[in-house]
Amino acid sequence: MTAFRFHLLATDGAARLGRLETAHGPVDTPAFMPVGTAGTVKAMLPGSVAATGAQMVLGNTYHLMLRPGAERVARLGGLHRFMNWPGPILTDSGGFQVMSLAKLRKMDADGVTFQSHHDGSRHRLTPESSMEIQRLLDADITMAFDECTPFPATIDQAAASMRLSMRWALRSRESFVQRPGYGLFGINQGGVHPELRAESARALLDIGFDGYAVGGLAVGEGQEAMFTTLDATTPLLPADRPRYLMGVGRPSDIIGAVLRGIDMFDCVLPTRSGRTAQAFTRRGTVNLRNARHQDDPRPLEEGCPCPACRDHSRAYLHHLIRSEEILGPMLLTWHNIQAYQSLMRDLRAAIADTRVAAFAAEAAATEARGDIEPR
Amino acid sequence: MTAFRFHLLATDGAARLGRLETAHGPVDTPAFMPVGTAGTVKAMLPGSVAATGAQMVLGNTYHLMLRPGAERVARLGGLHRFMNWPGPILTDSGGFQVMSLAKLRKMDADGVTFQSHHDGSRHRLTPESSMEIQRLLDADITMAFDECTPFPATIDQAAASMRLSMRWALRSRESFVQRPGYGLFGINQGGVHPELRAESARALLDIGFDGYAVGGLAVGEGQEAMFTTLDATTPLLPADRPRYLMGVGRPSDIIGAVLRGIDMFDCVLPTRSGRTAQAFTRRGTVNLRNARHQDDPRPLEEGCPCPACRDHSRAYLHHLIRSEEILGPMLLTWHNIQAYQSLMRDLRAAIADTRVAAFAAEAAATEARGDIEPR
Repeated sequence: MTAFRFHLLATDGAARLGRLETAHGPVDTPAFMPVGTAGTVKAMLPGSVAATGAQMVLGNTYHLMLRPGAERVARLGGLHRFMNWPGPILTDSGGFQVMSLAKLRKMDADGVTFQSHHDGSRHRLTPESSMEIQRLLDADITMAFDECTPFPATIDQAAASMRLSMRWALRSRESFVQRPGYGLFGINQGGVHPELRAESARALLDIGFDGYAVGGLAVGEGQEAMFTTLDATTPLLPADRPRYLMGVGRPSDIIGAVLRGIDMFDCVLPTRSGRTAQAFTRRGTVNLRNARHQDDPRPLEEGCPCPACRDHSRAYLHHLIRSEEILGPMLLTWHNIQAYQSLMRDLRAAIADTRVAAFAAEAAATEARGDIEPR
Repeated sequence: MTAFRFHLLATDGAARLGRLETAHGPVDTPAFMPVGTAGTVKAMLPGSVAATGAQMVLGNTYHLMLRPGAERVARLGGLHRFMNWPGPILTDSGGFQVMSLAKLRKMDADGVTFQSHHDGSRHRLTPESSMEIQRLLDADITMAFDECTPFPATIDQAAASMRLSMRWALRSRESFVQRPGYGLFGINQGGVHPELRAESARALLDIGFDGYAVGGLAVGEGQEAMFTTLDATTPLLPADRPRYLMGVGRPSDIIGAVLRGIDMFDCVLPTRSGRTAQAFTRRGTVNLRNARHQDDPRPLEEGCPCPACRDHSRAYLHHLIRSEEILGPMLLTWHNIQAYQSLMRDLRAAIADTRVAAFAAEAAATEARGDIEPR
């Protein structure tokens, strides 16, 4: 079994081209991980996810621990086998979802007690139990258990939250069972406060992780504040370890974060938008529910290899959405995942050719031209 | 362009092995046509439908005339291109759906006026307009416009209804535009009354069609009455034309009807059941929602080539259903369509080997052994 490794292959400004090696195979970075919350990338067969070029998917500790249960997944051979995804899997720690339960959870210094959103049953997550659950799921990359700092927060609230997360990061590290090819990522917190981000980075480096995530962004602070925070944070993270911006984002967010040295991304946007008739294209988002598509024989996006674009017209996609046919979300989800993977492929090629700044400028100009060309 | 032809290749008792040639390709019979009501076989990419072995699908005049509209489909290149199904398509006449609208429709001797179930807008179907709509859709097989006789009905009601359908069959024939490779089917009616079925068969043969459907069955009369009616009816239909039993049915219905000389079938059961967690297997139907599957690592059906059986466990399928994940209906629909196509392939092989009676007996015995083998 291969060791868990990150190879930094090239840089272009702060942008990085790399390759991650995990127990279940490699991941070329910058990489976007489609979200497979409950053991399925919604509306996609796993083979179709792989066909888009995606090499790694994300699973959710919170959802899977409640249903079908981590022990059951382990008995059935682990999450890879359970969902038939033979490639690498990253699992979140459950912290983010549990925090968003609001009234259904009670936090203390040791962890969080919460009620299932399915049946109200009581459960508890601590750094130790989160590590155990992610081990049972057989995640190639385990995330440290943290508190996602709410936004907005006072600097005192953000500091207290970050310091709690750093104590939990240490406990996560201490209880994580090291296995060849498996890695543990720490999560940088501190809201939009550079001094807290720096303190968090020092704490994480003292502990030592296989990779470093930037958490607590894309929670309402806006793209500019996110980029400013990244500018202050990524230089503090070690160059020889992968960097993961959690829960981000729109294509322009991803491009901007890659320019600032981020290697990995996940977000529900492409899958969720696929279920609400929103398609991502190089020219911006297209709402297929709009009646202007009803007689349009053209593909959603010329040159896109996904079946929505390869085999169907905008008129047909519009018809599927209007008719509430399952094939609508299926095709648009596929397209959106393909669009994100095509973007990551293009970003990797641009970094390899040291033209990523020009690529980013061209992408922004193309999107600004509007979401549909005149006929 | 090929002519519309039916080749009777072999018989085994009353069962028939044949091959239909249409403008958009051949169909091996006995054949089951997956239902693509609104221009999509629900929850399936067209390529996936073809991968199961299905050669022909059904489209619904009623649904397509209301949305997206037959003229729009024609402008977009016809139904084959619109839904990306390059193979043969049969369309129903709209009669069955319009009759089932109950209070929303008003029938007269000339046709039916009805209100759209979408927006209440008024529409009219006559034999002539049904032929025109099916021509605009570019159906390889057009069905004559008929009234589907309600069940139960008195013999007088059934006779009057059948005679109206025969007058409409003549008007359908007279307004159908003959084109090479395209065919028009007449529909035999008469409820469960052999003398009415015989009168209907004589009327249809006098008019002359490219194929003959048996309509008005599987509406509540039960399998025994359906088979009795087929026993009285199929011998009256010409041997050199295809015979289509509309809207049927469960696997045992299909096997029994093939034994009685039927060549073509359609039914929403495999697709609809796929969306309600019911899977068809050789051992009967399996309800994947049942908790007994939650720890079962075995495939739904050993040896089935569909992705649900090839790539996943019963435990995972159960999890998808419980979690209301779109992938559940996607996988079960695929399995059910595959199961029906595998049945038709096995029936064709059995007829070719003149062992169809033994095949039918074995299929019944296998189903009777129950829906799941002990572990």
